[in-house]
Amino acid sequence: MGGHDFDPGYVEEPFRSLCADYPGEEVYPAADFRVEWGPVFHRGRLDGRARVVVIGQDPAQHEAITRRILVGAAGQRIQGFLAKLGIEAGYVMVNAFLYSVYGQGGGERHADDPAIAAYRNRWLDALLVDTGVEAVVALGRLADRAFQAWKATPAGQGAEVAYQRITHPTAPESSARGDEEAYERAVEAMLRNWNQALERLRPAIRSPDVNRDLVLYGTALQPADYAAIPERDLPAGLPAWMRSRSWADRVGRTRDLKRATIAVVVPGDARPW
Amino acid sequence: MGGHDFDPGYVEEPFRSLCADYPGEEVYPAADFRVEWGPVFHRGRLDGRARVVVIGQDPAQHEAITRRILVGAAGQRIQGFLAKLGIEAGYVMVNAFLYSVYGQGGGERHADDPAIAAYRNRWLDALLVDTGVEAVVALGRLADRAFQAWKATPAGQGAEVAYQRITHPTAPESSARGDEEAYERAVEAMLRNWNQALERLRPAIRSPDVNRDLVLYGTALQPADYAAIPERDLPAGLPAWMRSRSWADRVGRTRDLKRATIAVVVPGDARPW
Repeated sequence: MGGHDFDPGYVEEPFRSLCADYPGEEVYPAADFRVEWGPVFHRGRLDGRARVVVIGQDPAQHEAITRRILVGAAGQRIQGFLAKLGIEAGYVMVNAFLYSVYGQGGGERHADDPAIAAYRNRWLDALLVDTGVEAVVALGRLADRAFQAWKATPAGQGAEVAYQRITHPTAPESSARGDEEAYERAVEAMLRNWNQALERLRPAIRSPDVNRDLVLYGTALQPADYAAIPERDLPAGLPAWMRSRSWADRVGRTRDLKRATIAVVVPGDARPW
Repeated sequence: MGGHDFDPGYVEEPFRSLCADYPGEEVYPAADFRVEWGPVFHRGRLDGRARVVVIGQDPAQHEAITRRILVGAAGQRIQGFLAKLGIEAGYVMVNAFLYSVYGQGGGERHADDPAIAAYRNRWLDALLVDTGVEAVVALGRLADRAFQAWKATPAGQGAEVAYQRITHPTAPESSARGDEEAYERAVEAMLRNWNQALERLRPAIRSPDVNRDLVLYGTALQPADYAAIPERDLPAGLPAWMRSRSWADRVGRTRDLKRATIAVVVPGDARPW
């Protein structure tokens, strides 16, 4: 036995309706989005307790299985970022895109699609208009564009909330492409960028979950800079290993099979047999 | 867009607490149960609208991904069985075991474990004591033992509810082991058994979702005898193909890897690209 926390999901309005009426292939073309895995909506508090909204980019393979966003490496890094601000439970995360981007440039091509923005803005309205949210953090350029598009709406113009765009948590992996030195430089640059954002965000967050002194990042990511996804963020009954490290992969001998397949593998040290 | 229905999940008590406090490896030994995939609790209505409770055996690979029970072939057959009784939404399904049975005989060995029964009986109490449920259907022998164990409790003794044990919906596959003729005979025997149960259950169900004449099964399963899992039974955002046919498999070159892996493959005709 033992008390397990879990995310109760999409119970209250307007979130219940947002999860019943979402755009499909007619808005997210299958050539550029993995619509076949269904939309993945959010992670975090939908009950008014959020103080920080995080805007990510798009869900990937781990998210297709857990049905919550930002649970892979990027999520664990951003979890550590929020902890530095004293935010351990009071956050909610949404993505610029409801479906995983497929192929190169798909995100760019659809960054300003009005129908994509219209639905996303309904989420941002629900999270940011007349709520307790004090700051918004956008992960990377497409997330920034999503926020700016909302900020240009009447609701967005009226909202007063601190805002920082930061380097996407897995940008170093993307830019370095396996080059160890390039990776280290990219991480260092990212953490410099994150430190600036932390210093700007800190005063905006008047009611953190925990009051703690701001400890900035060093020049490299330490193990403590990754925080496991809290149990309370995932649906009931998911095993603990789905909240840490890497356990889902797109595999397949052909391009077609690889798009069609996600292999879920219990990590070695989480095998009880 | 378009209205998508989904299961809101474990919102109300006592279900919220039942999904927070569930037995783990200390009750379900990892040698006999796939505890590594987490518990899978139920499928169907938890809001008092259920008229029929179905007791299944244990979740398998599809259920580990959708986090709802009886969504594979067995679930689609039992969905058709319920439809013949006019029950299209008013059901709730739970399993004898919270975790998938691993290997031969694991289910038998733990069929009478008191700690397994104690937790399961909390679910059956919640579903059967002072509710609108009019009938219980147990799928196979271990499900029958689970019901009998509950029936022997004080709460069970006090409950008045019609009850039928029926042949497990995938028993023909298990017994025939690939022999086509044996399979056909086993299906015919199963459908005879199901027809008897239908005739006994029909008068007990006073408030079906739909009033329809009872049409019994023939001697073989027809395509119409499989019903897709309703969208309203699964969590928000799951793609439609997760509610029909077969799309998850345990794969791996070694026994260890096979236990550790579930491969999810989008069916060919559900690939929009």
